[in-house]
Amino acid sequence: MRIALDAMGSDKCPTPDVEGAVLAAREYRDTVLLIGDEDLVKGELSKYNLKGTKIEVIHSPEFITMEDKPGEVGKSKPQSSMHIGLNLVKQGEADAFVTAGNTGAAMAIATLFTLHRIPNVKRPALSSIIRVTNNRTVILLDIGANTDSKPEWLMQFAIMGKVYAQNALQLNMPKVALLANGEEETKGNQLIHDAARLLNNLPDINFIGNIEPRDVLKGYADVIVSDGFVGNIAIKSFEAMGSALFNLIRAEITSDPIATIGGLLARRAFRRVYKQADPAEIGGAPLLGVNGVVIIGHGSSNAKAIKNAIRQARLAVQGKVIKSISDGLHKLSN
Amino acid sequence: MRIALDAMGSDKCPTPDVEGAVLAAREYRDTVLLIGDEDLVKGELSKYNLKGTKIEVIHSPEFITMEDKPGEVGKSKPQSSMHIGLNLVKQGEADAFVTAGNTGAAMAIATLFTLHRIPNVKRPALSSIIRVTNNRTVILLDIGANTDSKPEWLMQFAIMGKVYAQNALQLNMPKVALLANGEEETKGNQLIHDAARLLNNLPDINFIGNIEPRDVLKGYADVIVSDGFVGNIAIKSFEAMGSALFNLIRAEITSDPIATIGGLLARRAFRRVYKQADPAEIGGAPLLGVNGVVIIGHGSSNAKAIKNAIRQARLAVQGKVIKSISDGLHKLSN
Repeated sequence: MRIALDAMGSDKCPTPDVEGAVLAAREYRDTVLLIGDEDLVKGELSKYNLKGTKIEVIHSPEFITMEDKPGEVGKSKPQSSMHIGLNLVKQGEADAFVTAGNTGAAMAIATLFTLHRIPNVKRPALSSIIRVTNNRTVILLDIGANTDSKPEWLMQFAIMGKVYAQNALQLNMPKVALLANGEEETKGNQLIHDAARLLNNLPDINFIGNIEPRDVLKGYADVIVSDGFVGNIAIKSFEAMGSALFNLIRAEITSDPIATIGGLLARRAFRRVYKQADPAEIGGAPLLGVNGVVIIGHGSSNAKAIKNAIRQARLAVQGKVIKSISDGLHKLSN
Repeated sequence: MRIALDAMGSDKCPTPDVEGAVLAAREYRDTVLLIGDEDLVKGELSKYNLKGTKIEVIHSPEFITMEDKPGEVGKSKPQSSMHIGLNLVKQGEADAFVTAGNTGAAMAIATLFTLHRIPNVKRPALSSIIRVTNNRTVILLDIGANTDSKPEWLMQFAIMGKVYAQNALQLNMPKVALLANGEEETKGNQLIHDAARLLNNLPDINFIGNIEPRDVLKGYADVIVSDGFVGNIAIKSFEAMGSALFNLIRAEITSDPIATIGGLLARRAFRRVYKQADPAEIGGAPLLGVNGVVIIGHGSSNAKAIKNAIRQARLAVQGKVIKSISDGLHKLSN
């Protein structure tokens, strides 16, 4: 397998990106194509023993920053690492593209300038994969590609999410639910009611109705579907409360000498909590609906996160996610 | 001041409701009107030394359960404790009504059968008052009264929230923001864009634009406005992550003997964290837009929560919230 990695993606690029590529190349034995400023990337690579790894460097004269406007970079930086990486996927020279860079830019370049949409896909969706109770894995989509979604888009997100959960995350008969303000059928807004009607009439999907945020974190469904505005607020609310609570606990424990000793004794337990909550354990999640595997990681990714984002890309490629989505939507359109 | 309390509100009614009434009557010296089954309520009251308190019991032959459908109880249980309490406010025999009962039912009975809306109010809004970083207090609305809101409704929620923050929560020049998926003006959905336009043109309001969930919990704004569907998902996502993380920490600490000792030593620090996160410290939040002070608490309220919900009612009455909302909206309609 050949994975194209944006070496200029993360906030601290290319350091964690290159280290993550090396870790992945060692562990998975795939070819990793590192796309970025050749001198910088080779400088980073020189720190590692690359024996037995298959890493290629592809120079990109431009790269995209977090400040770049997604609507402009498609045309203004046609030689960016994102353009080059996504074009490699388009031309079949890479099986997947992974980036921890500007999400909006990656989405725009993938959708409008390089891969374009899978036939019949109305809108691509950004997803997030999170660990919930009992180490279950859940995929939420859309978490921000679209606002003011139409019911048909949500229905397609459900199909794409189901395919990803089944083929890449290897969840059997994944349960699909609509994120709502209550589990009862009467809850939800007009969009949720209309999408539920479509999903209830859809064959081959294990649609279980509405789900509340509490039950999302309990893992009562595998695929959580929402409009991008709502999904983004939900995922950001989870993150916000998680980090507010960690900060509060840290502040209270360290403000009190006895509790500080207690905190030190409980350190290993806290580490296990962090590990379960650590987004680097997942690494990244797919941009679904574009005609090729694209995995997007967080800007704050460290090397472990990059390595796991590459792992996510491998799972998507092995699971033939693009073909399955294409087949699923084709069947529906006939 | 005379506060009417639904003695049949909380999940374990009338025990915590009556105890909370006694605590409030002792501390605030107000008259508390306890509405519920006379025998049950008097039985609970007999447990306490009521010397110096002003508590009156008003019998209600019916009461509403969490299973009752909000759309039906208005007509099917006209003698419920909610009807009686809200009518006391309507007739000027009580200054406020407090309940920890079925929120939808309280809203329906207040809006459609007893108090009705303040003139010019398009829709009442449910609110939530939460403690955020540095013990700041924030009011979010709407958290569930309305889905598919119109921009004008959000503008009115902003005005009502601002009045409450100023007059009842005593926050000076409260900052008002729209809950969104990013703080930039370009973020948000169509509703947020349209509401922002209205709020930007509104005099006498400190509108600071969009706010992300992270910054809600940092207290960057005092009044957070959203559609009820979105606000409900945000507040439930905060709660869900809070309790998931507490459970995970407890499980990891108790799974390991050394960490268990650490957890015991850090117990006081954890108690301080709980106290800051404990909804009983706030007790309840107003249903804004109906023509009288109505405070709604959580079904799981304990006596402390009931007492604090009564405290919230006093603040609203003292702050002349209803008149200020009425004046504010009247000014705008001219």
